[in-house]
Amino acid sequence: MRQIINIVKIGGNVIDFPDKLTNFLNDFASITGPKILVHGGGKTATTIADKLGIESKFIEGRRVTSKKMIKITLMVYAGLINKEIVATLCAKSCPAIGLTGADASVIMARKRSPEPVDYGEVGDIDYIDTDFITKLIDSDITPVFCSITSDNDGHLLNTNADTVAVELAIALASVYDVRLIYCFEKDGVMSDGTVIPQINSEMFEELKNNGTINSGMIPKITNALRAAKTPGVLDVNIRNAEHLLYGSGTYITD
Amino acid sequence: MRQIINIVKIGGNVIDFPDKLTNFLNDFASITGPKILVHGGGKTATTIADKLGIESKFIEGRRVTSKKMIKITLMVYAGLINKEIVATLCAKSCPAIGLTGADASVIMARKRSPEPVDYGEVGDIDYIDTDFITKLIDSDITPVFCSITSDNDGHLLNTNADTVAVELAIALASVYDVRLIYCFEKDGVMSDGTVIPQINSEMFEELKNNGTINSGMIPKITNALRAAKTPGVLDVNIRNAEHLLYGSGTYITD
Repeated sequence: MRQIINIVKIGGNVIDFPDKLTNFLNDFASITGPKILVHGGGKTATTIADKLGIESKFIEGRRVTSKKMIKITLMVYAGLINKEIVATLCAKSCPAIGLTGADASVIMARKRSPEPVDYGEVGDIDYIDTDFITKLIDSDITPVFCSITSDNDGHLLNTNADTVAVELAIALASVYDVRLIYCFEKDGVMSDGTVIPQINSEMFEELKNNGTINSGMIPKITNALRAAKTPGVLDVNIRNAEHLLYGSGTYITD
Repeated sequence: MRQIINIVKIGGNVIDFPDKLTNFLNDFASITGPKILVHGGGKTATTIADKLGIESKFIEGRRVTSKKMIKITLMVYAGLINKEIVATLCAKSCPAIGLTGADASVIMARKRSPEPVDYGEVGDIDYIDTDFITKLIDSDITPVFCSITSDNDGHLLNTNADTVAVELAIALASVYDVRLIYCFEKDGVMSDGTVIPQINSEMFEELKNNGTINSGMIPKITNALRAAKTPGVLDVNIRNAEHLLYGSGTYITD
């Protein structure tokens, strides 16, 4: 029988508040069975870049990663945030290991074409080494991924954390029954102040057209739908980070 | 029959020069059999701290790690330098994984007493999980350690990279025959412009007394002697990073 794995993505805005992050990690540590945590970077990367005189540039809400900015993301995502999360989880009896895609070449990517939009040092995922991840999990070690990948030539690349979570879900669905949970600061996908309990492809088109779903939520749900369509993915859910263990949030279904 | 493992420590001053580091990593990648790389931080941590308005404080050449400074070391050692080394090695057909002591609790430390000298967030190593390291090596993955450890409560601590290398050598001598190699910018321990080919405990006392060996070289050799005395450690050598593959340098012997 296949085991269930929980793949949890924690949004940047929770990472910006140490108390919220600690509460979330308490909950995450208490999940039994195989699990993976994927985290974004929060506002710290922008703050540090500002202080170092490196301009943060965004196109339609997506970061443009210059050669200087990839160094900042390495420092903040792979260094500061990742290792603080790992040390905290280990202290909560949840042995964890911090990983970028470069480590053991576990997530290999290819630099995105500069056409039509040049996002700089940004990678699209080509390959995930599910064997390596499974071995860690079989040794009771929880992988904690930040949103950095690498290409075959050793160039480090920035990859959206939502995308890392989805690609892990799709790849690991060949080995486990996957629950993919996106945690952020809201209770789910909202419409007029209430949570939409379920969204499928058709509803998504409608909700985009009437403007209920817009900006950053569009790529998030597009990604989530891709996972939901994958055999072996049991469910895909978007919920409040404060309700990791007992939330219902919004289910994204095929 | 026990396998030989090469544990190589690369000094900070080589890390500050990208071309030197690349040449060194070419050589390191070409070493066959089990191996581990341990790296320090170079001057980048001080430069970044300066730019962020965080004061770098040293007592007798050793960094005092304030609560702000440990975040800088996490960013620079565990993020920037570690992941660039890992990605470079992977691209040179040397699958590598970047680790702090916090990852999988592989190197656990205890915060050093603030008496007689308060070095701040600095850790002395208590425990090394040789099983975890051996499993990685058996999977043909080379561990790349930076000089960060963690205590049982999830506090990240700065630990001298020479010490990390020595403690790894001593711990792994229970499993492998260990060669410990310190690489830096000189050809070995120098006396009047020539390399001293061999130093044992007695000679070390003499060389300290006559001033040939001083300052930062004293803790390095004290550490090296500890490793040299350990059964299972074949040899301990200090050499030029440019001569990793064919250098003779200075052998430290019991």
